[in-house]
Amino acid sequence: MRKYKGNVTTPVGFFASGIYAGIRKEKKDIAIVYSQAPCVAGGTFTTNRVKAAPVVWDMEILHNGQPKHAVVLNSGIANACMGEQGKEDNYRMAAKTAGALLISPEQVFTASTGIIGQPLPMDVIEKGIAAAADQLKSEEEAGKDAAQAIMTTDTFCKTVACSFMDMDDEVEIHLGGMCKGSGMIHPNMATMLAVVTTDIAIDEALLQEAVSAVVADTFNMISVDRDTSTNDTFLVLANGMAGNKKIEKKNKVYDDFVRALFVVCKDLAKKIARDGEGATKLLEVKVRHAKTKKDAVLASKAVVSSNLVKAAFFGNDANWGRVLCAMGYSGAQFQPEKVDISLVHEDDEVELVSKGMALAFSEKEATEMLSHEKVTFVINLNDGYEKATAWGCDLTYDYVKINGDYRS
Amino acid sequence: MRKYKGNVTTPVGFFASGIYAGIRKEKKDIAIVYSQAPCVAGGTFTTNRVKAAPVVWDMEILHNGQPKHAVVLNSGIANACMGEQGKEDNYRMAAKTAGALLISPEQVFTASTGIIGQPLPMDVIEKGIAAAADQLKSEEEAGKDAAQAIMTTDTFCKTVACSFMDMDDEVEIHLGGMCKGSGMIHPNMATMLAVVTTDIAIDEALLQEAVSAVVADTFNMISVDRDTSTNDTFLVLANGMAGNKKIEKKNKVYDDFVRALFVVCKDLAKKIARDGEGATKLLEVKVRHAKTKKDAVLASKAVVSSNLVKAAFFGNDANWGRVLCAMGYSGAQFQPEKVDISLVHEDDEVELVSKGMALAFSEKEATEMLSHEKVTFVINLNDGYEKATAWGCDLTYDYVKINGDYRS
Repeated sequence: MRKYKGNVTTPVGFFASGIYAGIRKEKKDIAIVYSQAPCVAGGTFTTNRVKAAPVVWDMEILHNGQPKHAVVLNSGIANACMGEQGKEDNYRMAAKTAGALLISPEQVFTASTGIIGQPLPMDVIEKGIAAAADQLKSEEEAGKDAAQAIMTTDTFCKTVACSFMDMDDEVEIHLGGMCKGSGMIHPNMATMLAVVTTDIAIDEALLQEAVSAVVADTFNMISVDRDTSTNDTFLVLANGMAGNKKIEKKNKVYDDFVRALFVVCKDLAKKIARDGEGATKLLEVKVRHAKTKKDAVLASKAVVSSNLVKAAFFGNDANWGRVLCAMGYSGAQFQPEKVDISLVHEDDEVELVSKGMALAFSEKEATEMLSHEKVTFVINLNDGYEKATAWGCDLTYDYVKINGDYRS
Repeated sequence: MRKYKGNVTTPVGFFASGIYAGIRKEKKDIAIVYSQAPCVAGGTFTTNRVKAAPVVWDMEILHNGQPKHAVVLNSGIANACMGEQGKEDNYRMAAKTAGALLISPEQVFTASTGIIGQPLPMDVIEKGIAAAADQLKSEEEAGKDAAQAIMTTDTFCKTVACSFMDMDDEVEIHLGGMCKGSGMIHPNMATMLAVVTTDIAIDEALLQEAVSAVVADTFNMISVDRDTSTNDTFLVLANGMAGNKKIEKKNKVYDDFVRALFVVCKDLAKKIARDGEGATKLLEVKVRHAKTKKDAVLASKAVVSSNLVKAAFFGNDANWGRVLCAMGYSGAQFQPEKVDISLVHEDDEVELVSKGMALAFSEKEATEMLSHEKVTFVINLNDGYEKATAWGCDLTYDYVKINGDYRS
């Protein structure tokens, strides 16, 4: 398996574009991802009770029996909490895209991100969609344009690609992805907006199974601010153009595909965590030797989600008491007096806690370790064989600044 | 019923002291609250799986059949995650207090707050306890000293008193309270440290019932940072010196007492929320017309706990989309398309949302309203007859500053 630079246009037969329509100020704001060949699709969506219009639409058309061809996305306005008008505007987005690509609206997924409670400027959007459809290209640059068009407070553009060989059929299968993150990030089903394309030929039910499995250990394990958005959407489109024998049951190629999808999603998820609003670094929390998977998940997510841990992390303070405290209220079952905690960066390790009690570690060494751009806490519960890893970021002045003044 | 300035020494027969022992730098750090007359007690404690030694001790001795006489409290070090040594040190705190007051250690509650994972400096503590026991007084000033001694990052001292007439017995019954809050505040059972004294004569089981009922609607409805501490402790001591006929069953005096206890606890809880670390104002969220009480509680707590809502509140931004989003992931059952949201300050009201959709409100007016020191969101679910109110504060640069550098 090979992971490399690339994006949604990396797999064979996918086209993309990202243009400036005028929803936002001086920033690309509409993207289209398109496959001429019909695709099967998989997806997961926000669990928030308040769902944006595009989420409702995507859930409706996913697995409706029709082949899919495109995703149209906009940044700037979320099209959430807009009632009937929101639904109509969303349908017009799908219909406009479908008209330009000579397909039907039910073959087009939609996604919006930005401010809640404002109407989409439909004139601007429809002109933008026409322009974006005109500019669809299969070049890497076009995929990058699309990834840029969905950014909001993101500070860098998030894409990745990966491929592996199907030895039986002697074909290479590609995956490419893009996503946006930043704020309102505590996915509980899917992430903000993420689109992965692949040229694999696969049965739609199996694709959905792979998507659901991979999301649980990747996008669902990150948190920027514990706020599960109204718009979280993760979509995978598979157009079968790699030329492999269509996967109809779980075999070696399927396993390889799940692994590749995991690599792509983990990469995107970590990029979202690293680029959390105002963040200066990536926090990784590995919980090991938990009694159950659920305990490992609860404990690791509570630690990356704790404001106090995140603020200490920003201040390069090895405040492990807050780590243990967060685990304590997480709902995870564990014995505090069995817990070991270490701080790890590359080959270095500082042991902070052994059997639930402080070790005499060098504060200087710990602070130095915490000052790196990526830091890992390894937490050993010494209570079983299950594990989980969660990702988050530090809580900084800039988070407050960005969110104290987002709408203006 | 009368609410007024006062504290734990307001009820008849209670003594207090707060002194500087040397655990902290230039700040009072040990407090004792004492009643010569034997007390019945009620209490609630943190639900965090990681419980500090004093919490474990208090849970052990509460309702052990022995009359209670005192609470000893220290700030600076939390005595949490210290294993056997923590237990021993805690017992020595109780024993030293008991020795000075000629009672048994099992009649003394303990409470600690501060840094997790450091040992108590027992020399300093024991000398401090002796000094504090020497200085016990029944004057208001002494109660204030005690309240000051338990402050950590609190910016003001939190006390209140209240009294009501028992008309049958023609006696006045008093309640007095103190607490400390600030960070790691998301009580789920009790609050950080809070002590309420009262001179009512009451059966211990009834007192506990009153305590549990009142906590649910007061201390358990505040959040500063969603971090439930290892040390949360709320204790009520009742010494019977008001001279009323002892309450053995629920009658009018009992109901009046519950109301008075509610007034005291609500006052203290709101002070904690208002004085959250780095906070500049109090956020009150009233959820009305919910189908069930649980839905009202979940929705209101999610809103006051949301980092995004709190940051918007700091920025005086009437970002109601974040309010609705937080309700959406709270787990509360409600119909988004039925929800009304208003911003209320004293007699002014700005309607933001009607039936789940944006109203055309004046941003200027809303911003002006949000700039007050206390702001209320009234959220009407239009779905039933239950309600709940939660309190929180804004998320500011100073929260990050304080918590990025707490231990140094």
